[in-house]
Formats: sequence, C-alpha cells, structure tokens
Amino acid sequence: MPLARLAVPSSLSAEKIRALADAVHDALVETCAVPPKDRFQLIDRRDPEAMILDRHFPDVERSAEASIVEILFIEGRTPAQKVALYRRIVERAGAAGLRGDDIMIGLVENARIDWSAGGGRAFEDPAS
Amino acid sequence: MPLARLAVPSSLSAEKIRALADAVHDALVETCAVPPKDRFQLIDRRDPEAMILDRHFPDVERSAEASIVEILFIEGRTPAQKVALYRRIVERAGAAGLRGDDIMIGLVENARIDWSAGGGRAFEDPAS
Amino acid sequence: MPLARLAVPSSLSAEKIRALADAVHDALVETCAVPPKDRFQLIDRRDPEAMILDRHFPDVERSAEASIVEILFIEGRTPAQKVALYRRIVERAGAAGLRGDDIMIGLVENARIDWSAGGGRAFEDPAS
Repeated sequence: MPLARLAVPSSLSAEKIRALADAVHDALVETCAVPPKDRFQLIDRRDPEAMILDRHFPDVERSAEASIVEILFIEGRTPAQKVALYRRIVERAGAAGLRGDDIMIGLVENARIDWSAGGGRAFEDPAS
Repeated sequence: MPLARLAVPSSLSAEKIRALADAVHDALVETCAVPPKDRFQLIDRRDPEAMILDRHFPDVERSAEASIVEILFIEGRTPAQKVALYRRIVERAGAAGLRGDDIMIGLVENARIDWSAGGGRAFEDPAS
Repeated sequence: MPLARLAVPSSLSAEKIRALADAVHDALVETCAVPPKDRFQLIDRRDPEAMILDRHFPDVERSAEASIVEILFIEGRTPAQKVALYRRIVERAGAAGLRGDDIMIGLVENARIDWSAGGGRAFEDPAS
C-alpha cells in the first residue's frame, strides 16, 4: 500500500507529470515487490512560491522542473531495495525527458497494521 | 495531537466531505483516546488527474468518491485500537452516505516529543 | 534533508508566510545542525474549510492566522534539540509579527537511507 505524494512545478507538462507518476509506480513494482495494481498517488502542482527548493544542495543541479516525491510504504525494504528504487525512478523518468537531478525522493515507513485499503478492515494482503 | 490529511475528490459534496472529517475525528476519540477538542485536519479537494487510485486493489470496489485519509499521531495505539479505528470511521461515514470501500486509511506514528501545539513549547499533555 | 510542509490560512499575508518559512528553516539550521543550503519547503495556502483546527487545544489561543508546520527529517535529533527547535521557530516568526500560539509543529523522522537528493543516488552527505 504505498501512498506517493508528488510535488511538481505547475509549469511541468501534463505528459512529464504523468511520466514521473508512472516512473514512481513502476519502480516500486520492479524494486520493492509492490503489486502492479497497488497504486495510490496524490499529485500537487505547485506555483513557485509554494515550493522552496535549494537549487544545488547537496551536489545536484536542479532546474525549474525540480520535483519532490514522498512515498509512504510498509517497513521492511532493504537498503539495497531503496537504492535500486531511487535509481529506477530516475531511469524511467529520464526516458520521458525528466532530468535525474530534478527528482528528489523521501521515504516514510509504517507497519502493515497501519493501513486499511477500504471497507473498514485492516490491510492483510501478505503479498503487498 | 493527531493531524489528519484528507484527500477527497473535488466532486464530493461539502456535506460528505464534512461527514468524513467528522467521522475521522469522532472515531479517533472513541477508539484511540484522543481528547474531543484535539482536532486538527487538513482537507485537500482533488481533481481526478491529481489523485491516481487503483479502483480495485486489493479486494475493494472504489467509486468516484474514493478518498484517502492519512493520520499522523503519537505512537502507542494497539493493533486492536487501530482495527477499531478503521471500522468506526467507516461506520460513522457510512451513516452520511459514504461507501466503506471508498475510504482508504494510512497511519503514521511519531513520539510525544515530536509535537508542539503552540507557543514554542513541546507538547506535554499526558491525556492526549 | 528536512522536508517541511506548511499549511497556512489563505488570508495570511505573503510577508508572514515567507517569514514563517524562513523561521522554520533558520531554526533547523541553528538547533538541529541542518546545513544552511539544505532547504526544501512546500507551502499550502488553505481556505478555512480546508483547515479544521481547534482554537484552544490544549492550552493555546489560536487566531485566524493559525498554521501547521510538519517537518520530515532524519532521525537522531535529541529531545533537547527538538525543544530548542520549537522555541526558535516561534522566536524567529514572532519577530515578523506571528503569534507563537498560531504555530503548531509536528515532526516525523526517517533514516538517512530514506532520502535521495537527486540523480537517483541515495543521500550520503554525512553533515546533513
């Protein structure tokens, strides 16, 4: 049950926004064993004054297309999986013309018991 | 000090949005010992392109009213309390006409020291 | 790599919004050893119906300018640092005319491996 929040500049094209969202989901499926249908994403288009980003910290060059991806998912992914996730998101988004330095990613973890997919029931799918 | 973020479709009526917000808060009070006045909620009305949800994962049927509730609160609630919270949110929202399958819930926990209610002071209310 | 999300009332002046954002960042630098250039902030201006806040809980007096600051950062800050952070945010914002009781703060922690600053690489800056 990953929940991804994408903060993107309002000037980013709809095509690139969708490509970034697809890249995030596909990379979760490929590197973190997320089921393909387990897709939940919230996208915020932001004007420049609603998004304050340092252009260079720590060693990247962000452009006007710089975006932030925050993913909340269930604990248990290894450091190697997280490293692969970052790389894969950037590879896939790059195929759509997004620069790797414009994609910042933060992960937050919770537990399986911390999700209800619906119906008022705790989430129990062992494969997710 | 729960902080709830509700992502709801922009087509959802103001009455149902308020009912969902009330359901979330009332259920926290009833199942998780949250003080009745300890209410802090942020509500985002989202257009379809800003909210990408699988319609069926894992075993639910979401409609155009599907919403996501994310709750940040202090660690310590038991699995039984979380299960009761999910059920109670759906029961209460259902009384206002919302479908249980349209309510997805995710919880994130932090510590008591991670909150300041105001005035620049750490939060110390032992009852919250 | 702190990521701060500010929820502010849409009636708050641009000057005060900027002052609050500056206060949050400067206080992180001063109390939590965040590098000065490590600034990433998302600001949401919210209409009253999108921001439900109790006016008094637990022992504060919130006005129409009440705002919520949520900070996601790397684990390891001490309770003393968090207490100093809250106080410093309010002190600095107060210099710009914001009331301390109007600033609620919540912290969420993740791990160093949970960040990629860009380029698809895990974040490794030891000083951040």
